[in-house]
Amino acid sequence: MNKIVIVTGTPGAGKTSIVDGVIKEGGRIKYKTVSMGTEMNNLAVKKRLVKNRDEIRKLHPKTIEKLRGEALVKISKMNGNLILDTHATVKSANRYVPGFSSREIGILSGLKAFVYIDSEATDIIIRRARDRNRTRDVDNIEELKQQREINLSLIASYSIQSEVPVPIFIIENRENKLEQAIAQAKDIIQKIFNEN
Amino acid sequence: MNKIVIVTGTPGAGKTSIVDGVIKEGGRIKYKTVSMGTEMNNLAVKKRLVKNRDEIRKLHPKTIEKLRGEALVKISKMNGNLILDTHATVKSANRYVPGFSSREIGILSGLKAFVYIDSEATDIIIRRARDRNRTRDVDNIEELKQQREINLSLIASYSIQSEVPVPIFIIENRENKLEQAIAQAKDIIQKIFNEN
Amino acid sequence: MNKIVIVTGTPGAGKTSIVDGVIKEGGRIKYKTVSMGTEMNNLAVKKRLVKNRDEIRKLHPKTIEKLRGEALVKISKMNGNLILDTHATVKSANRYVPGFSSREIGILSGLKAFVYIDSEATDIIIRRARDRNRTRDVDNIEELKQQREINLSLIASYSIQSEVPVPIFIIENRENKLEQAIAQAKDIIQKIFNEN
Repeated sequence: MNKIVIVTGTPGAGKTSIVDGVIKEGGRIKYKTVSMGTEMNNLAVKKRLVKNRDEIRKLHPKTIEKLRGEALVKISKMNGNLILDTHATVKSANRYVPGFSSREIGILSGLKAFVYIDSEATDIIIRRARDRNRTRDVDNIEELKQQREINLSLIASYSIQSEVPVPIFIIENRENKLEQAIAQAKDIIQKIFNEN
Repeated sequence: MNKIVIVTGTPGAGKTSIVDGVIKEGGRIKYKTVSMGTEMNNLAVKKRLVKNRDEIRKLHPKTIEKLRGEALVKISKMNGNLILDTHATVKSANRYVPGFSSREIGILSGLKAFVYIDSEATDIIIRRARDRNRTRDVDNIEELKQQREINLSLIASYSIQSEVPVPIFIIENRENKLEQAIAQAKDIIQKIFNEN
Repeated sequence: MNKIVIVTGTPGAGKTSIVDGVIKEGGRIKYKTVSMGTEMNNLAVKKRLVKNRDEIRKLHPKTIEKLRGEALVKISKMNGNLILDTHATVKSANRYVPGFSSREIGILSGLKAFVYIDSEATDIIIRRARDRNRTRDVDNIEELKQQREINLSLIASYSIQSEVPVPIFIIENRENKLEQAIAQAKDIIQKIFNEN
């Protein structure tokens, strides 16, 4: 049995920095993080399908689907309080692939909340430019707004697939205010794991 | 057997004023209003869980879920033409809880349409400031836009859960134009109950 | 067995021009177009319900539902690679009816992708003013933005109804750049039919 909080957001919104910060701060209730991308990557490396993380999105869609399904089943069997770091959509150029189908989100029976890390399009562009570890598309404000719209629509759809609605938390990660965003995320996550 | 029109909108958009106005105007086809909040409140008072309406949102999420489920079953058994006044989302600070899950909206088998009362963020802020009967969060335009986005996404999702799509009507409630909004809502509601 | 790409967009976004252009350009992989409206119209004419296409939306909602269901079953039985040209929503005044319910989209088991033709509200208004063959509502920018929001929310919901998520492609059809939009659509469609 587990309790799962899905933390998601557009790449560059600060998802990973916030999750890392929350883990570092700790707190009364214990939890661990699981990254959907890392789980899929580990499975793909084990199967010798890829050498590094950014290669996953270049795999055949059917292979990605299979990896995602296996990763979800693995996560659903983990014990304890889990923060699941994942994409709401995977975007490449003008192609958006939702992170999960309704059926797949249903695999995570311990799901308690969505935390969406939101950020100004201009801040995202600056952060992405700084991050040289990842190969990413060139960005523009219109496309970032579009991805945000699709992300929020998907999360709204996911949130009503369970027996009862799953709450959605939106955290605004402002430039130079990472500490506040981390503190806010920590409080929310502690409360969710404590409450349920 | 009943026919249900769900009237919803962000608090302060004028949902209740419009529903009251529609009822006052009457019309050829008879109908009554049911408020999701009032039904849940009545159940909660009966069970001695709360003393007044604004206390409901402070109950434990699991208690709220149970009250919502019971209220939905009760409403689904009422006869006649029903206008159901309800929240698309319940918001407190940056936490959004959808009004219903897909499964819960399915309880309302007589559902014929959604009427979304929409309003400018600035008008909503003015109306909320005037309304001293309710304890509400401090508001800002960005959050109101965000809630509107989530509300519309949820209604779009709800509208495709039935056998066939449920129509969505959007009524713009402009400041000082309440009479027009009421007239528009009345025409829509009369037509829906007459048609189906 | 078939493979289906749904091409959709607000009327006036250039959906039909792009689909016609894609067909004209041809390409290595063969496919044909099916129009949801034409299929429904053909069925309605055969049953002597209407004389021309714009009369369909004036039929009783229950009749439209029945026509849509029959058209979907017919399309789901067609062979080969199909481009399905359809509305995400049918709008008349402030009433939006989603193109399909979740259950109906499920009839199209060969569905591989959504292609959403997007366009600036001002461009849509200009194009609609030019098009004298169709009787359409008077438009304004706010309503077009609203319809776009509802369309994208619906497509996001539809895209997660299958076993695995269905990719969404968004093509921006800019005024005087139709050729680019056609080329982009052609590449996407060829790739989808080739890949799956």
